Amino acid sequence: MEYEILLHNLNNTQKEIGTDKGLAKIGDSIVNLIYSVAKSMYLTKINKNAAIIRTGDKVNKTILSQALKDAEMKDFAKNRGDSHDLANTVEAIVAYIWLSRKSTISEMIGIIYENLSGDITKRRMENENASLAFAELLKIFKPFLPTKKI
Amino acid sequence: MEYEILLHNLNNTQKEIGTDKGLAKIGDSIVNLIYSVAKSMYLTKINKNAAIIRTGDKVNKTILSQALKDAEMKDFAKNRGDSHDLANTVEAIVAYIWLSRKSTISEMIGIIYENLSGDITKRRMENENASLAFAELLKIFKPFLPTKKI
Repeated sequence: MEYEILLHNLNNTQKEIGTDKGLAKIGDSIVNLIYSVAKSMYLTKINKNAAIIRTGDKVNKTILSQALKDAEMKDFAKNRGDSHDLANTVEAIVAYIWLSRKSTISEMIGIIYENLSGDITKRRMENENASLAFAELLKIFKPFLPTKKI
Repeated sequence: MEYEILLHNLNNTQKEIGTDKGLAKIGDSIVNLIYSVAKSMYLTKINKNAAIIRTGDKVNKTILSQALKDAEMKDFAKNRGDSHDLANTVEAIVAYIWLSRKSTISEMIGIIYENLSGDITKRRMENENASLAFAELLKIFKPFLPTKKI
């Protein structure tokens, strides 16, 4: 199945990709999928009782908006965007990279998994550490994104 | 990235797979992803103005529970389950198939896309026709699922 056509009407600028509502919606599902699998794998690895853990928690907006700031990629977002807007920008970027076949779901899960650390069963630590993992993902994606800002 | 380990503690029976809460959570993101891309591709194909349409609408529970009934796979669900339970069962099956590498996201998008029909911009027609498409997906998955019921 070829779906790169879904990108054909986009001008390849950072702002257009990062503020596209349809991309953000598609990216929302991708982000939740890669995070739920990476988190399940990570929790299974650190579990002391060798239990297998399957979870599907949604990624909260704080995690994603902080990741965009940490990766220094706020240029992709709406001017004066709030944390919800910044999170949408991360989702749009993830969808763009995936639809243009620059990365796969499996690769993205691997990157998030490798970059998770600490006891993410504690909410505050999860927010901090998952942000860092998503920031690493964004930094890896950067070379595959347009350099033209607007 | 290998994540088949997430299935290792499951007994391979229809009921155990179809009622696993963690699988249903992971499957929720997969189902939303494949449907949003298949729907975007389909709406782009039927659009009279040759516009590219990107959408990410979540799949509603009615669509999925009807699909499970149409595919005659209610044995996988909780006894006397409501439509929410049946929808979770579809999600769990999709996650199981994907985690065990019996199908890919791309293949699933293709199957849903090929089986969509009619004017799905109308809610009622969308529900009916998307159910049929998901029922086809389930029928294709059936040979890869355990035959043991409980």
